[in-house]
Amino acid sequence: MPESIIPRATPYETYAAPESDGRAGESRNDYFVEQDGDRFAGTHLILDLWGAERLDDMAYIETVLRDCVTASGATLLHIHLHRFTENNGVSGVAVLAESHISIHSWPEHGYAAMDVFMCGETEPRRAVAVLRAAFRPKRIEIGEHRRGRIS
Amino acid sequence: MPESIIPRATPYETYAAPESDGRAGESRNDYFVEQDGDRFAGTHLILDLWGAERLDDMAYIETVLRDCVTASGATLLHIHLHRFTENNGVSGVAVLAESHISIHSWPEHGYAAMDVFMCGETEPRRAVAVLRAAFRPKRIEIGEHRRGRIS
Repeated sequence: MPESIIPRATPYETYAAPESDGRAGESRNDYFVEQDGDRFAGTHLILDLWGAERLDDMAYIETVLRDCVTASGATLLHIHLHRFTENNGVSGVAVLAESHISIHSWPEHGYAAMDVFMCGETEPRRAVAVLRAAFRPKRIEIGEHRRGRIS
Repeated sequence: MPESIIPRATPYETYAAPESDGRAGESRNDYFVEQDGDRFAGTHLILDLWGAERLDDMAYIETVLRDCVTASGATLLHIHLHRFTENNGVSGVAVLAESHISIHSWPEHGYAAMDVFMCGETEPRRAVAVLRAAFRPKRIEIGEHRRGRIS
């Protein structure tokens, strides 16, 4: 995976890289999962990273999001990142066959608000290990929702 | 706003409509908000809709997401929707200057997992009223996180 495939225009940029042309016949892992007697659509992790590094580096953040997708065994459909002029913050969303990953960063606070929502046969918690290694946060708060709980 | 601007190719499609060419000088509402003595980055609503309608209608869902953005006073930067072959489910993400809105729908269950994350001077709860009117869910579960709480 290249370190950066994003043209580094300044002072801000918009980048969209459709991963699919819509013709590849990708299917959604849409079956509800069962775990601990619950039946639910998927796991939604709410992640707050504090004292984190490289939150202004859009190319790096794209690489990290892609690494999260790979580590979790998910399938990337579309990725979009946007850098803001005022604070070099980055918003990024990876749309997955299994839901999404998002990041919104405030580099001036060392803070990133992220979420990792995955359905089907994926391992969303593996993304957390990727994020710890990549952004080296001093503190990380993790909330978890079982989305679409039936039982 | 047009009812539909999406080519309705079947059986599945990928659609990305960048709202900005990255040259418009949009700024982020990145200041932390203060409310009830808390200082935090923004409000993240976790929404589970059950018994909902039109969850397989991608063009309609795009219109609804755009209506949510308008109602909340947010700024749309990028919107992407994707329809899945297996169940006509839709995944959609609207990237905002103030964070994001997402939807992942399972029409066969009448279920949609949504989230509305907004920072700055926006009214994310107004999006909930839009969603109730648009998808007419029999039941809606709402979770709320104050993201990036400092105090």
